[in-house]
Amino acid sequence: MERLKRQISFILELDKLKSIVRQTYLADGSRKEDDAEHSWHLALMAFVLAEYANEPVDVLKTMKMVMLHDVVEIDAGDTYAYDTEGNSTKRARELAAADRIFSLLPDDQAQEYRSLWDEFEAMETTEAKFANTLDKVQPVLLNDASRGRSWKEHGVKESWVLNRNKRTHEGSEELWKYVKNLIEENIGKGNIKGD
Amino acid sequence: MERLKRQISFILELDKLKSIVRQTYLADGSRKEDDAEHSWHLALMAFVLAEYANEPVDVLKTMKMVMLHDVVEIDAGDTYAYDTEGNSTKRARELAAADRIFSLLPDDQAQEYRSLWDEFEAMETTEAKFANTLDKVQPVLLNDASRGRSWKEHGVKESWVLNRNKRTHEGSEELWKYVKNLIEENIGKGNIKGD
Repeated sequence: MERLKRQISFILELDKLKSIVRQTYLADGSRKEDDAEHSWHLALMAFVLAEYANEPVDVLKTMKMVMLHDVVEIDAGDTYAYDTEGNSTKRARELAAADRIFSLLPDDQAQEYRSLWDEFEAMETTEAKFANTLDKVQPVLLNDASRGRSWKEHGVKESWVLNRNKRTHEGSEELWKYVKNLIEENIGKGNIKGD
Repeated sequence: MERLKRQISFILELDKLKSIVRQTYLADGSRKEDDAEHSWHLALMAFVLAEYANEPVDVLKTMKMVMLHDVVEIDAGDTYAYDTEGNSTKRARELAAADRIFSLLPDDQAQEYRSLWDEFEAMETTEAKFANTLDKVQPVLLNDASRGRSWKEHGVKESWVLNRNKRTHEGSEELWKYVKNLIEENIGKGNIKGD
């Protein structure tokens, strides 16, 4: 019973991801999405779009990875992609959060999931590259659908978006081609500022 | 490119699940959760709690099933568990929704996911039973954490909760034991009304 209690405490702790708001708007532009919604969307994309990974991926592993990739934001908060100051301290804040949050679990699962989180961050394996690609593609899809609302509010420039996406092709050349095209269209529309 | 476009249109259509509000409050009681958050929580539980399934489950299949189980609510809306009138028309509304929404996808995926949705509904296979158990357990966990807020607002009675959970044990005797205990505690606290 002690084991199940620890697992339930982890599941309830992660409920807090529903209250961590990101900078990306829903497709209809009505409000910003939260981390749980974002993670759900990535997990959906992981199996619907698995065929586009550059190399065959373990879909279950990729799904677990994206389901867990933002748990550290419970303590560390969501650091906006283009917040330079926030990003300079992000790594240290997130490591401390990972130590605390995964340790709620029984040891075997704490180790497995921490290791998946580390793998996502290191971005070296096939699954980590594909998961990171999805994490970059999803906000572009939502930004495009919501007529660039978040890009415009933050005055986002072409070079910022391209720099942020400089490794997106590593997980999927095909998805990167699709997204690159969307980015160009949005530069054309003025939703992303040319440099 | 036509194939990818159809897949992206499905992924963006499902963004609407973020705007379908359920009757269950977040664990901290701050607001009600939506279908995307609920589905994310079930997918998390599917792999964290897989060891408690009565029979070994295919975790990936279970995760896909819970990720997709509420997509029909985009058209049919969320029918509250204890809304008798709404539940009498629910099945017909949801079947029409399934026809429309899955047909956004390329044929092979439309068939695979529709079949997963049908399987969840039929509640006969090991994965469908476990997925349905998670779908019943999660609101109890959140209701308990939020001090029975949703139960109290709706004047929910013991017999309603027990009737709704009459098949929860079929997916996992151990999770049902845990949840039955929580239900009894909440009857004791007056969060659920005795009959």
